[in-house]
Amino acid sequence: MADKVYRASTTAPVNIAVVKYWGKRDPKLNLPTNSSLSVTLSQADLRTLTTASCSTSFTDGDSLTLNGEVSDVSGARTQACFRELRARRAALEDADASLPKLSAMPLKLVSENNFPTAAGLASSAAGFAALVKAIALLYELPDSPSDLSLVARQGSGSACRSLFGGYVAWRMGEKDDGSDSKADLVAPASHWPEMRALILVASAAKKGVSSTSGMQQTVATSGLFQQRIKTVVPANMASMEEAIKNKDFAKFAEVTMRESNSFHATCADTYPPIFYMNDISKAAIRAVEAINAKAGKTIAAYTFDAGPNCVVYYLEENADTILGSFYQALGGEVSGWKQGTAIVKSSVELESSLASTLKEGVSRVIMTGVGEGPIKTDEYLVGEDGQAVKR
Amino acid sequence: MADKVYRASTTAPVNIAVVKYWGKRDPKLNLPTNSSLSVTLSQADLRTLTTASCSTSFTDGDSLTLNGEVSDVSGARTQACFRELRARRAALEDADASLPKLSAMPLKLVSENNFPTAAGLASSAAGFAALVKAIALLYELPDSPSDLSLVARQGSGSACRSLFGGYVAWRMGEKDDGSDSKADLVAPASHWPEMRALILVASAAKKGVSSTSGMQQTVATSGLFQQRIKTVVPANMASMEEAIKNKDFAKFAEVTMRESNSFHATCADTYPPIFYMNDISKAAIRAVEAINAKAGKTIAAYTFDAGPNCVVYYLEENADTILGSFYQALGGEVSGWKQGTAIVKSSVELESSLASTLKEGVSRVIMTGVGEGPIKTDEYLVGEDGQAVKR
Repeated sequence: MADKVYRASTTAPVNIAVVKYWGKRDPKLNLPTNSSLSVTLSQADLRTLTTASCSTSFTDGDSLTLNGEVSDVSGARTQACFRELRARRAALEDADASLPKLSAMPLKLVSENNFPTAAGLASSAAGFAALVKAIALLYELPDSPSDLSLVARQGSGSACRSLFGGYVAWRMGEKDDGSDSKADLVAPASHWPEMRALILVASAAKKGVSSTSGMQQTVATSGLFQQRIKTVVPANMASMEEAIKNKDFAKFAEVTMRESNSFHATCADTYPPIFYMNDISKAAIRAVEAINAKAGKTIAAYTFDAGPNCVVYYLEENADTILGSFYQALGGEVSGWKQGTAIVKSSVELESSLASTLKEGVSRVIMTGVGEGPIKTDEYLVGEDGQAVKR
Repeated sequence: MADKVYRASTTAPVNIAVVKYWGKRDPKLNLPTNSSLSVTLSQADLRTLTTASCSTSFTDGDSLTLNGEVSDVSGARTQACFRELRARRAALEDADASLPKLSAMPLKLVSENNFPTAAGLASSAAGFAALVKAIALLYELPDSPSDLSLVARQGSGSACRSLFGGYVAWRMGEKDDGSDSKADLVAPASHWPEMRALILVASAAKKGVSSTSGMQQTVATSGLFQQRIKTVVPANMASMEEAIKNKDFAKFAEVTMRESNSFHATCADTYPPIFYMNDISKAAIRAVEAINAKAGKTIAAYTFDAGPNCVVYYLEENADTILGSFYQALGGEVSGWKQGTAIVKSSVELESSLASTLKEGVSRVIMTGVGEGPIKTDEYLVGEDGQAVKR
């Protein structure tokens, strides 16, 4: 009889920061120069599904298959996650001799995203969160999401925030060993479930400087960066937590936009300068400003990560205005609109040059909203026989 | 017999800052939040010619004609210049009763630029410098260029630097009345005459936020701005003066580029954000970086004012490489190339997407270099009869 294959599966979400992570004080441990805060997005629209399995029959060592392609697991970050999780499992096994010695078996991980990698969305957060959570389930670790965020952080900094749903803070911590640099829940999705996000995916254009390398260039060369981490971000963290607790969208929006501006300003102040936003991104900013101006209050907020895609946060009650305005500019031929999206009476007609820049540059949209954290599932990407499931 | 017409004429240069002026601590007196430093450009390529005249026969009051069009003189800034200069003339007249009472006569000013206003080059610096200098000549004031810079500053901040040729600092000063906020000479053009500038004029696109309004929005809203004025600029001023004194181009270039980045970063950090650079500007930055990388040393520096035009500083000894590289990308059909500019062996072939962005977006070039300060001339735009000269 073949050796037993142990399996566990989970999904994990993408998160989009409203207070940005940019800069490491310890690149090896992924310890940040500042705290950050994000909104976890719904897994109905964006999620990674990962099955972790282990068996003595996996004689080729640890492996990871991502979207059908073999992925390298020898990198320091993946290794750190494996090592940390195995150590926790080994501690359980040491304490209870009846447990199977999973920590000694090779791991086979199979992972799939439900969104195109080409969308340029930071998939590493969902990816490492799913990887860590799946192995933790496989190993039946008693660790809390916050405990696991310490591990996920070592895979990809922002992954630590994808261990929770809703509104999530990553506290930078102070300790050299990083043991206090972890995520915690500011508020669950149910606290403020009306939060929506429209992602404007800017047509390709090759990825610029990677965020890992970009952020360290900023730390090393930007004369404005110290002001950001010492003064600007701490103030924005406090304002943002208050805005979320009070469900104060205008404040949430202002901090979100100022934060995005501040982050991209330090990129532009890097030497040589790093530009993630392009003329399409700027047109999206002007569109949000026009929508808010027309509304006479702040009903939409833009934010940009390390790329040109614009994420527009808004509340469900203003969905018609926000979606209608962008639908009017982009037209129905752009993929990603959900059924029923239409130009509505409250839509803002954008200035024609703005609308045409957006229409030319935006290749697809993603309509989503705040969502839950990782969810255990019995959908497996590795069969009982230990083979990757054909799909 | 008609009343006598008194006349004086001067030219004044454009200057392009390498340490940027952005932010006023006193908007009325044009007192800046930080010192700045510029290179005065050659008047053979860019200059304002202004004739100041006065006569009791000018019965319609003070007037200014700019490039053939009547210009409003009732603005506070122009009025401040008139008032300051008249007061100085009046003091001379009070001390010497034999002097004609020019201070009491209406002024007629006629001014012409030798470059298209459409080029989007900051013409207010040359304009106010010429206005102040022409009136000072008309009034036979004994004031030094530094003294006159106090007056020109009240017309347009950066105009104070156009009272000198070569390399010019505007010391921010400390006093509330602005009496110590004036320009002085860091080094004359003859100290480092090899400095050249290639201006890439980005095709129109309407002017964004005016610099007067933009800089005050930055002061009011940018969380990074205090760091710039308190730490970044003072360090850059010191480095830049040293670079100029030592004719150290690599250092001059690095400070120039970092300064431009820092200035535009605080614009991007303004709320709402101000973007003066566009995708064409960014292509120009990448082109300069490619040229420097190919050369294995820094032979070119970019800088951007409050608009998308790129100014590339370089030394005469590298003219072939710099000009040849841009000529190769832009082609000969772009206006402004001087005779003899050609693709040369040392030209850098820019990546094709970069070259095509530049070719699409750059409408003309201006080839110039460091030059002299205002020059008195006997070319008059007002005739002896007090009429504007037809040209």
